[in-house]
Amino acid sequence: MSDYSTGAAYVDGAFMPLSEARIPITHWGYRRSDVTYDVVGVWEGNFFRLDDHIRRFRASMAKLRMTPRESDAEIREILNRVVALGGMRSAYVAMDCVRATPAPGMPRHPAFARAYIMAFAVPWVWVASPEMIERGLHLMIPKVRRIPPEAFDPRVKNFHWGDLTEGQFEALDAGADFAILLDADGNVTEGAGFNIFAVTNGAVATPDSGALEGITRASVIELCAELGIPCAVRPISAAEFCAADEIFACTTAGGIMPAARIDGRIMNNDRPGPLSMRIKDAFWRRRAEGWHATPVNYAAAEEIPA
Amino acid sequence: MSDYSTGAAYVDGAFMPLSEARIPITHWGYRRSDVTYDVVGVWEGNFFRLDDHIRRFRASMAKLRMTPRESDAEIREILNRVVALGGMRSAYVAMDCVRATPAPGMPRHPAFARAYIMAFAVPWVWVASPEMIERGLHLMIPKVRRIPPEAFDPRVKNFHWGDLTEGQFEALDAGADFAILLDADGNVTEGAGFNIFAVTNGAVATPDSGALEGITRASVIELCAELGIPCAVRPISAAEFCAADEIFACTTAGGIMPAARIDGRIMNNDRPGPLSMRIKDAFWRRRAEGWHATPVNYAAAEEIPA
Repeated sequence: MSDYSTGAAYVDGAFMPLSEARIPITHWGYRRSDVTYDVVGVWEGNFFRLDDHIRRFRASMAKLRMTPRESDAEIREILNRVVALGGMRSAYVAMDCVRATPAPGMPRHPAFARAYIMAFAVPWVWVASPEMIERGLHLMIPKVRRIPPEAFDPRVKNFHWGDLTEGQFEALDAGADFAILLDADGNVTEGAGFNIFAVTNGAVATPDSGALEGITRASVIELCAELGIPCAVRPISAAEFCAADEIFACTTAGGIMPAARIDGRIMNNDRPGPLSMRIKDAFWRRRAEGWHATPVNYAAAEEIPA
Repeated sequence: MSDYSTGAAYVDGAFMPLSEARIPITHWGYRRSDVTYDVVGVWEGNFFRLDDHIRRFRASMAKLRMTPRESDAEIREILNRVVALGGMRSAYVAMDCVRATPAPGMPRHPAFARAYIMAFAVPWVWVASPEMIERGLHLMIPKVRRIPPEAFDPRVKNFHWGDLTEGQFEALDAGADFAILLDADGNVTEGAGFNIFAVTNGAVATPDSGALEGITRASVIELCAELGIPCAVRPISAAEFCAADEIFACTTAGGIMPAARIDGRIMNNDRPGPLSMRIKDAFWRRRAEGWHATPVNYAAAEEIPA
């Protein structure tokens, strides 16, 4: 009997413990980062917006001209199985579609390489630690700029993280938790794995370009409508962002993450801001009520040969 | 006895057939493309500019704050062994340095993740097929732009190939072999795995920014000096490039690759241009003379337990 407790994976047709899930070093999914992915969260036995994640994943694959053999229904089944195999109540569930290499004798061009699916579930991951979320994130603006949409469409979720990684090193050097990257026009975009919102005079805003169209971000926009909070999707300059009353980040692996500092400036007496907390509380209250929830089919684990 | 004939690899301390060389799907080297690499060629039993490649690889690792356990001398030894294990006279030899994941209990930050080395040798790979090089490459300028140096330094050889891959699909749609990407200012940069040169009125030029500082490119600059051909490193606009008398590309895995067409325009009666051919011929003649050559130590294979 395999041990799936630290993670269960699916690689191109086969289920296995996460520790056995690997990609050949010659495959272009690694060697050219010719890959797209998505991450859906499971909290207390329920997927959050499962179909929205699969829909975005499929759109990303289409944009990269990837056509793996699995249908959306099969991907849904695979995600259920990796969570069920691990018996996880709360999990971080990733799905990747990677390009292999061109078949022997074919031109060295991605059009001649098949794409295949990998997926895995691990116990819930916090992008920021619960302690950071409690005290409020410390953010900063690094020198490195975000890869622009003209070079790679950020709506296609991708592993081109060199800029975000460099930003995280600049953040570390500055004593901050996370870097928020600017685009070429000096507007804020996103951080390493999360979208951002600024709050000024009771109104909320989030960048309209240069960032992933996050599903938690979409949920925040929905929540603002429910709560009667004005919310705009528009450019936000670095100056506006750094002078905001409040800032919060959001992501699948962490929900709503209020900030307490930006570029050394203290906000809200060095604590999460009141409007950010109102949205954070509403987010988790609505989640507990079953908002956009799909129960995990834990019986899916039974169908896997041990 | 393992079969190394189709490729031999080294992964984090162990030698193995290439087919067994894989990277865990959780490692940031894959999952965030947090990796740098280099490729050195072996032709007829000799490495070309081996120390220059190891020096560039070390500089790339330093830029990414990666400190694997292997010294430059050990990397040199590893590269010899993977070639020797495969018994290859001419080989494509890659070295990668990848970030793993932060140690358990440490912050989710690349500073807390170790970096390790992988390497492999396969029989010689042509970036463009010998037939394409013979007839002259068909090039085109795609809509997608190159990732700018402000987001990721192209001198750190990297797998952020989403823009180059998209360019290759645009090239395929246009019936061309390769896309040459522009930067935000509309100057040419590079293609998928090679540098470029334009020839106008007997003078050669290559872009000064937005591209890898290629070692074959440096060799072309040296050759031009030897041959008395003027060679400039400076911005080249798309307009100048598309109106050039000749164009050629260069790379480790292919040497000098003259072009016959750019964006549908035919150059040199649809054949490689005369100055490009003069440089190509000089390149291979100098290589045969032992220029920058380091003989492979084929005895290195003996030291590996079978």
